[in-house]
Amino acid sequence: MPTWPASSWSDSTLPGTLRLTVAYDGSGFHGFAANAGVRTVGGVLGDALAAALGGPVELTCAGRTDTGVHARGQVVSLPVAEVDVERLQRSVNGQLAPEVVVTDAAVVGPGFDARRDARSRRYRYEILNRAVPDPFAASYAWHVARPLDLPLMVLACDPLIGEHDFSAFCRRPKAGGDEEASLVRRVIEAEWDDAGDGRLGFEIEASAFCHQMVRSIVGLMVSVGAGRRRAGEVAGIVAARTRRGVGDLAPPHGLCLQTVRYDGWAS
Amino acid sequence: MPTWPASSWSDSTLPGTLRLTVAYDGSGFHGFAANAGVRTVGGVLGDALAAALGGPVELTCAGRTDTGVHARGQVVSLPVAEVDVERLQRSVNGQLAPEVVVTDAAVVGPGFDARRDARSRRYRYEILNRAVPDPFAASYAWHVARPLDLPLMVLACDPLIGEHDFSAFCRRPKAGGDEEASLVRRVIEAEWDDAGDGRLGFEIEASAFCHQMVRSIVGLMVSVGAGRRRAGEVAGIVAARTRRGVGDLAPPHGLCLQTVRYDGWAS
Repeated sequence: MPTWPASSWSDSTLPGTLRLTVAYDGSGFHGFAANAGVRTVGGVLGDALAAALGGPVELTCAGRTDTGVHARGQVVSLPVAEVDVERLQRSVNGQLAPEVVVTDAAVVGPGFDARRDARSRRYRYEILNRAVPDPFAASYAWHVARPLDLPLMVLACDPLIGEHDFSAFCRRPKAGGDEEASLVRRVIEAEWDDAGDGRLGFEIEASAFCHQMVRSIVGLMVSVGAGRRRAGEVAGIVAARTRRGVGDLAPPHGLCLQTVRYDGWAS
Repeated sequence: MPTWPASSWSDSTLPGTLRLTVAYDGSGFHGFAANAGVRTVGGVLGDALAAALGGPVELTCAGRTDTGVHARGQVVSLPVAEVDVERLQRSVNGQLAPEVVVTDAAVVGPGFDARRDARSRRYRYEILNRAVPDPFAASYAWHVARPLDLPLMVLACDPLIGEHDFSAFCRRPKAGGDEEASLVRRVIEAEWDDAGDGRLGFEIEASAFCHQMVRSIVGLMVSVGAGRRRAGEVAGIVAARTRRGVGDLAPPHGLCLQTVRYDGWAS
């Protein structure tokens, strides 16, 4: 629920919802979700919006990215009264760019909720797979020096497609938390691409993701590509629904929230 | 001249020259040239090589990049006795990567000098020309929000091609300095490319460059693209040989030393 103070918003009807598309370099943030005492994307974005709108705001986001994870197409919503969106965008970017940039701003129907209404999220994970690292990719790709067998990693994607209980890949929510619900998710697409010079990318689109799901999956895929696990093991790991089988998480700096899809619109 | 102490190199014949290709993110450095009291690429690279080789070294580089300027294909040479180049490369990269990375290492003839023997240097300058900045390009491209007319900027390249006195674009060397010589340089190629989404690139190859030459040229080109100067003025600015006509320098973070060419080899 919005938390407009009566003093700054005398009329609480709040006729619209502001929908922002936000890109950020996550390197300097403890993730998206506002959290007292640490610097988060949601925290600085909320402060910048509050300064621009003249009152505190409460944001909803489509994907709560973890510490160090980037975004190109994060979507954020908040209820608003009348607002000049172009001026608002300039104001927020003037405060936060280039680390955090509002790439699109629109007022949409009052019922829109960036999280609840999202039909799917698409993440991209980048790996630099060659002996020698690249200074310019260092903040955005996981450098894996050991040669990876890409065809095996492609094979390992197949058992992920479709609706599964992804308990094997997700940090178990705390009892009583707001995510006590099921870890069943529907993976729509999961595929690797090879841009040459060792630049591998993994793109995965799903109805939603649970905590650390993409990084767990990439960690397992890299184990397969490096020959430490077999592609044939993946289906069994999914079915086992226990995290012990998965192995190491891929580091956060290779991960980026690319796009969020809604009915009739995508970021 | 090399400065090997007699204690660590009893035989001073130094039969070979080590040739390194070096990539670096210049953001955290006061340029390449070693300089007491500030952190430079040459300083940290020299320290890492000294640690790996067991004695102080004196480097020669093909292009002394300024504070904040990047490189993908900087070339460095130093006289060496016998050396295991693969082990040396691993050692230096272990100390400095990913900020500074030796991408290639070879022992070449004893007479090789990275600076003197270079036939040409090629720089690239990147601009992001759109209203909204990009968090991921922020360290490597100059964000110019005002729309630029690329065809005019292409036209403005023509008067630069060929051999000219580039005094108009260069910081005048101090009297008595080692660069008191002429500012005549031969520009082999100067061209713009457009990768879409506002990503403009300027590549310029010349026999050599004088201080701040590329950034002065880009600053002038952007003035032309923004309509503040006319493309037809460039020839006159070159001919005038005075810096007053040029205008503002483009910022250093958009600039990268891409390649250095030698007889029979290029970085």
